[in-house]
Amino acid sequence: MPYPDELRREVEHYLEGLRFSDEEEVTGGLGEAMRYSLLAGGKRIRPVLALATARGLGRDTRELLPLAAAIELIHTYSLIHDDLPAMDDDDLRRGRPTCHVAFGEDVAILAGDGLYAEAFRHVLTHQVGEPARILEAVGELAAATGVNGMVGGQYLDVDRAAPAGAPGLRRLHELKTGRLIGASVECVLLIAGMSGPATNSYRGFAAELGVLFQIVDDILDVTGTDDALGKPRGSDERHGKRTYVSEFGLDGARELAATSHDKARTALAEADPAGPELEQITDFIYTRPS
Amino acid sequence: MPYPDELRREVEHYLEGLRFSDEEEVTGGLGEAMRYSLLAGGKRIRPVLALATARGLGRDTRELLPLAAAIELIHTYSLIHDDLPAMDDDDLRRGRPTCHVAFGEDVAILAGDGLYAEAFRHVLTHQVGEPARILEAVGELAAATGVNGMVGGQYLDVDRAAPAGAPGLRRLHELKTGRLIGASVECVLLIAGMSGPATNSYRGFAAELGVLFQIVDDILDVTGTDDALGKPRGSDERHGKRTYVSEFGLDGARELAATSHDKARTALAEADPAGPELEQITDFIYTRPS
Repeated sequence: MPYPDELRREVEHYLEGLRFSDEEEVTGGLGEAMRYSLLAGGKRIRPVLALATARGLGRDTRELLPLAAAIELIHTYSLIHDDLPAMDDDDLRRGRPTCHVAFGEDVAILAGDGLYAEAFRHVLTHQVGEPARILEAVGELAAATGVNGMVGGQYLDVDRAAPAGAPGLRRLHELKTGRLIGASVECVLLIAGMSGPATNSYRGFAAELGVLFQIVDDILDVTGTDDALGKPRGSDERHGKRTYVSEFGLDGARELAATSHDKARTALAEADPAGPELEQITDFIYTRPS
Repeated sequence: MPYPDELRREVEHYLEGLRFSDEEEVTGGLGEAMRYSLLAGGKRIRPVLALATARGLGRDTRELLPLAAAIELIHTYSLIHDDLPAMDDDDLRRGRPTCHVAFGEDVAILAGDGLYAEAFRHVLTHQVGEPARILEAVGELAAATGVNGMVGGQYLDVDRAAPAGAPGLRRLHELKTGRLIGASVECVLLIAGMSGPATNSYRGFAAELGVLFQIVDDILDVTGTDDALGKPRGSDERHGKRTYVSEFGLDGARELAATSHDKARTALAEADPAGPELEQITDFIYTRPS
């Protein structure tokens, strides 16, 4: 399946070059735990999406690497905290022991905290561009990952406090995963200084992509193989989670995914990006095996 | 004992006005847990220090409230995570049940995560000033609270990995508490656009204040009353923590505190701030009962 592998390699190479501890003999152990989780592979969908958006706008992707890396650091932090015993209590992630299994619960909490801090430090000190635009973009990144974004969505997930029915399920996922996927596009628009109606198609595309990602995620938790998922299949059901599959059945969820994929492709066609990368990501998210 | 109570009220009033959840019926419960810990009282030393620095430089303190509030949000987040069962496992803080006792461990982790995110969101979207200077100041705030600051110091504390002896103890506390206290001064200098040799005295003062704060904290854990501390005395010893008292004895720690107080006052006299607030804070930190 076509995927912007060139952009993924660019991200991977950049992430591998990051060092978090200034004093190896003092805080090096913490930096090691952070890199253990950060460098566990994966498709790097969010940062690749950010770079593909930059390319779609005709910009040099290299200029956006600090932002893209910050987004992946934040995503990794969220996975570490979601896996904790007090949260989902998961032992495996991408076929390897989760951070708290490998390093202890206290170090895992701090590795997550540290990744979040270093994400902000990195983008605030390395991102090139108009300072006012960078402020706005990083403010959006904080909003997308705070109470009205990722952390709020995770709260709904653990607290079972999500509003009932399909709208509640959609809201949970908009917050938990949709906002950060959306921000991967939005922050690039902001740094590029693009706003107003011209960018509405990009924004509609990004929002739909977040929905599509989550529907497919819920389907894969039922239909994927343990090997491809890197963790035992069926964990949503074991955790009693409300998913698109539990709400609409497997066939219903598949129909929703097909509709969502169409909508995302339509919005993208309206945005009319340069290059095929955003189409490739959209199709990949729809048809990925894990 | 004189304390800049006017500045403290300004901070308190501003913090009380903060709302974190945009949708009360969705994420209001998380916002409630965050406000429970944020509005538990205290002297608000860090934000008051930031405002006092602004006044020392002859600036309007109100302009710095978004930064000051962000610093207190971050401090609160660090207390919530430090108190977790996997960390210090403390049940009481300021005479009330800790966040995880009141709201559960999962919600407490997310309340900390949420406070950190909302701190960045708030200062990035509300702080007035030259955008390039705000970027630099918030970048310093992220650095001071990341792997080479607060989170790194907490790692040394839980991991018992601190380098041995007095220098190691000092490094642990420089990272864990000193950097954020220093940042409360440093970020104001940055937003005010002050740099170069003229600000060295302020920086020296801020660094020494962090040291003084921690020595006195260690002494109070041995000599304070449960009532004044808001938690049982002697928790450092029960947790097997290395402190200035365990390292130098109570008399030795008191001598160190007196020396540190002198140094801080000397550096402050060189900085020659307008107004008595920074002197009051310095003396308060030295002589406070809890």
